[in-house]
Amino acid sequence: MSSKKIIASIDAGGTKILATLIDESGNIIARAKKSTKIKKEKKVNIVKRIKLVLDEALQGIDNNEFTLAGIVIGIPGVLNPEAGIIHLAPNLGIVNLNIIKPLKNYYKVPIFIENDANLGTIGIHSYETDSKFENLIAIFVGTGIGAGIVINNQLYRGKNFVAGEIGHMIVAENGVRCGCGQIGCFETEASRLAIEREILKQIKGKKTSIYKKLLTKENPQIKSGMLAKALQSKDKVTTKVLTSVSQKIGKMVASLSNLMNFDCFVFAGGVIEAVGHFMLPIIKKTAKEHALKQNMKNVKILNSKLGDDAAVYGGYFLAKQKGLF
Amino acid sequence: MSSKKIIASIDAGGTKILATLIDESGNIIARAKKSTKIKKEKKVNIVKRIKLVLDEALQGIDNNEFTLAGIVIGIPGVLNPEAGIIHLAPNLGIVNLNIIKPLKNYYKVPIFIENDANLGTIGIHSYETDSKFENLIAIFVGTGIGAGIVINNQLYRGKNFVAGEIGHMIVAENGVRCGCGQIGCFETEASRLAIEREILKQIKGKKTSIYKKLLTKENPQIKSGMLAKALQSKDKVTTKVLTSVSQKIGKMVASLSNLMNFDCFVFAGGVIEAVGHFMLPIIKKTAKEHALKQNMKNVKILNSKLGDDAAVYGGYFLAKQKGLF
Repeated sequence: MSSKKIIASIDAGGTKILATLIDESGNIIARAKKSTKIKKEKKVNIVKRIKLVLDEALQGIDNNEFTLAGIVIGIPGVLNPEAGIIHLAPNLGIVNLNIIKPLKNYYKVPIFIENDANLGTIGIHSYETDSKFENLIAIFVGTGIGAGIVINNQLYRGKNFVAGEIGHMIVAENGVRCGCGQIGCFETEASRLAIEREILKQIKGKKTSIYKKLLTKENPQIKSGMLAKALQSKDKVTTKVLTSVSQKIGKMVASLSNLMNFDCFVFAGGVIEAVGHFMLPIIKKTAKEHALKQNMKNVKILNSKLGDDAAVYGGYFLAKQKGLF
Repeated sequence: MSSKKIIASIDAGGTKILATLIDESGNIIARAKKSTKIKKEKKVNIVKRIKLVLDEALQGIDNNEFTLAGIVIGIPGVLNPEAGIIHLAPNLGIVNLNIIKPLKNYYKVPIFIENDANLGTIGIHSYETDSKFENLIAIFVGTGIGAGIVINNQLYRGKNFVAGEIGHMIVAENGVRCGCGQIGCFETEASRLAIEREILKQIKGKKTSIYKKLLTKENPQIKSGMLAKALQSKDKVTTKVLTSVSQKIGKMVASLSNLMNFDCFVFAGGVIEAVGHFMLPIIKKTAKEHALKQNMKNVKILNSKLGDDAAVYGGYFLAKQKGLF
């Protein structure tokens, strides 16, 4: 009996590395996950770390039954997928690195890299929405804000493969300074860090706040899960800040709808996974109020349900496109 | 001798209708232009008006030498090119009208309609820049602001064929109200009307201003030509306002570059034709200062030189795509 082809689809994030093995039909048959350890060990070798996680996933399957046909890796950074070079991935501590070459010493199969938001977008477009939206933007709201764009059913990358930097569109005239150096970038207004900043400002000097309990030495940041807890407790500051941020996102949807007349807007990322059920109705309402009527006609606005798996499913579809199956 | 095929490429604007006859090689062999007369005669029949201008152009050629193979008409409005229906063209006084059907009574050839900014964009992309920019946006700065988008060398229309409404992207939090009903739309900040509004505000109460001479009963509005005259006279208010508007446009270029990573930005329209030589260096400088470095790498920012002919050349390339030659 000949062995079945599988591919490895890996999401190499700044916090954790997720490696999955996926068969031709799109079933995840094994998975492994480890912390990236970039922050703790400054000189961690990302190639060895990826190998460690992938090998753990490979140990979970029968080598006689399956053959590895290729590897796709999602990277949170600026890269050239054709040249295989990662120009800049701050969360992985990478500047101008070819990670394909050293990995080929261990795995004698075709290896592809792609921006993680782009892979997540392919996953959402092809797997979750079944390719029924010709022109789609997936917006990832987390610590920062990024996006992936599908045009005519194909991932759109732009001239230098760096399209989708929605977080650095300028939306506030008198906003705060962004990590990129500009003032008023969209992610300084609507990311998790922006939500945290606004909540801390509003509870400052207040005697009681749910965050006095939730924020501890071990958990000094307002992470998405904490937002969900505060929202569940009907905390007024959280409700107010998330409403305001959702309205800002809704206005962005209106602007993008007017410019690009997308068929579908999909929201994903940590903040959406945690509190997207509260935000989505406000985003939709604000978008419809602010966009041109004709542009929003029959346009869908959704939250993704794929969570962490969006990028690895995207890797599966990219592998199919590349002819690995 | 068999006769040569030509197509009619018509730009039906709110002020004037321009009809051209173009041969297979892209040469304009005849042209005619008349005022649209929509404002003076409220019940003007746009179909008859188009016929009048087209017939004048056709009279300029030898019927034995040329055969009309088809007609392309650019319309300033929201339309469905596939159904042939104009949903809304305020400057032509049109709501939900099929103009192809009545025109077919006079001309027994294939007739196509397309949004005028889209045709202008095709003209700029295919004729002026020789299709060398895969992903291009053409931004038309006039009384309002519109755009046309080319992705993967093809006109991009979006779900409802209404992509390109850059004028209604929201950029100012405390801006003025736009004709569309929203506050802070890009065209309320950077169109000819916005420039006029700002200049009038700045000269109010001032004893001397070049505009006291230029503005008359016959010319009560600050049209683009007047801006050019004031600029030539080194009028300080004009210089200041155009600098500020160019910076706003430059910030928009930065935002769009970050989102879409276009290969090329082309500016066109009345304001650009008149004072674009002054604005372009400021637009470029501001864009480069505000965009992510990687996104602006090797990206071109240009002014179109086609003027009124952009849309009719676009019609020629559309006709070729439709197989009329």
